[in-house]
Amino acid sequence: MNQAIGHKRWAIAEGYIPSYGNGPEPAFTSHETACILNTSDLDAHIKIWIYFEDRDPIGPYQETVQAKRTKHLRFNNLKEPEPVPLDTDYASVIESDVPIVVQHTRLDSRQAENALISTIAYPVAI
Amino acid sequence: MNQAIGHKRWAIAEGYIPSYGNGPEPAFTSHETACILNTSDLDAHIKIWIYFEDRDPIGPYQETVQAKRTKHLRFNNLKEPEPVPLDTDYASVIESDVPIVVQHTRLDSRQAENALISTIAYPVAI
Amino acid sequence: MNQAIGHKRWAIAEGYIPSYGNGPEPAFTSHETACILNTSDLDAHIKIWIYFEDRDPIGPYQETVQAKRTKHLRFNNLKEPEPVPLDTDYASVIESDVPIVVQHTRLDSRQAENALISTIAYPVAI
Amino acid sequence: MNQAIGHKRWAIAEGYIPSYGNGPEPAFTSHETACILNTSDLDAHIKIWIYFEDRDPIGPYQETVQAKRTKHLRFNNLKEPEPVPLDTDYASVIESDVPIVVQHTRLDSRQAENALISTIAYPVAI
Repeated sequence: MNQAIGHKRWAIAEGYIPSYGNGPEPAFTSHETACILNTSDLDAHIKIWIYFEDRDPIGPYQETVQAKRTKHLRFNNLKEPEPVPLDTDYASVIESDVPIVVQHTRLDSRQAENALISTIAYPVAI
Repeated sequence: MNQAIGHKRWAIAEGYIPSYGNGPEPAFTSHETACILNTSDLDAHIKIWIYFEDRDPIGPYQETVQAKRTKHLRFNNLKEPEPVPLDTDYASVIESDVPIVVQHTRLDSRQAENALISTIAYPVAI
Repeated sequence: MNQAIGHKRWAIAEGYIPSYGNGPEPAFTSHETACILNTSDLDAHIKIWIYFEDRDPIGPYQETVQAKRTKHLRFNNLKEPEPVPLDTDYASVIESDVPIVVQHTRLDSRQAENALISTIAYPVAI
Repeated sequence: MNQAIGHKRWAIAEGYIPSYGNGPEPAFTSHETACILNTSDLDAHIKIWIYFEDRDPIGPYQETVQAKRTKHLRFNNLKEPEPVPLDTDYASVIESDVPIVVQHTRLDSRQAENALISTIAYPVAI
């Protein structure tokens, strides 16, 4: 299983990080995650662009997912070129130099009991 | 990243807006959302049709998602040609003149703790 | 928008109807739904097979989704050839004579606060 | 409906089994499931690899899903070559010798009220 699987570009049209939460941190911090799987035997160099409703996109954020590794990347932790604003609708495009698989998950802990969503991201044909 | 990505037609077979909710509005109003991402450098002119169990579809509702922008469109806010009825099963078809990506999300706050769903919409090959 | 969109065969690998729930019925009855959208101008004649872990599949269950209509079909309500057993893992295959779109949703109200899942079903290439 | 449907390789980029939960076991044990549907008339011999953030993948785990059967496989129950670690981000690749359909579900019962996610897995073109 050293074969690269997936696509080199993915899109996630949903995005929203609540600014508050309940429960022990960091597990129960409200967060939004792009789960990235790189099955290839080459490191994946990832670029992420964040799109908004009312201003130009920002990016690229740059990350590396090592060969034969997964990384569950919290949008909350993206810092450069600037943190992703909270309580703000956004969307994202994720590009890689090797094929990857991307799944999108949010934990929303604004209320006493957490809520979860997850969906496969949109694989872009290129 | 000025390339248009996605499809020009999408379908969401699930649809249901609860008529009540709990928690501070509008964040915790029960709502149903089509998250739309337009990465192209042209505005996307969107038409939406709503399908029902027992009457003819209504539409098109018309929206614009500007170039390089996302819009998280609440079905609750569609007004013309008529509001989407609450507590009613529906489905939707979304068309655009440029490729877009669509993800479907619902926040159901009928009970004390909210529940969330999200899924990529169905990209129609045309 | 009289065009038929979607696939003629879909699969849902997840299936489980909890045998109990909380909250006002039928909205909060624990249930599992196949949301079906038929945008064509022909009625869709649907056949559903249910697969189990330890016995032969049962079916076909037969339903009709009228032209330009959606039907949010609760597996709980399937009666012929036999009701879908509760508290039992199952999967389903849905076939139609015209293209349809299928989305899978469950409301689990076993606890005081309901939980929801939803995902696009798997469109089978045929 | 004896036709094989689906793909022979699937990927799930999200994976995380909480180490604790609430509610009667095993139904409310926090768990992560790969729901597998085998509609063919041949048994499906399944191999699963688990990928991590910081060490080499482990596997293959081996399972059989009989002809015309579904199996809702809990990652919690995988034992050989070693149990899947709890409270740890992972991803998975699932291979079969006949086409199958895979859907991913998690029940998170860490808090008083459970949360659920589900999504179709990523079907790999091979």
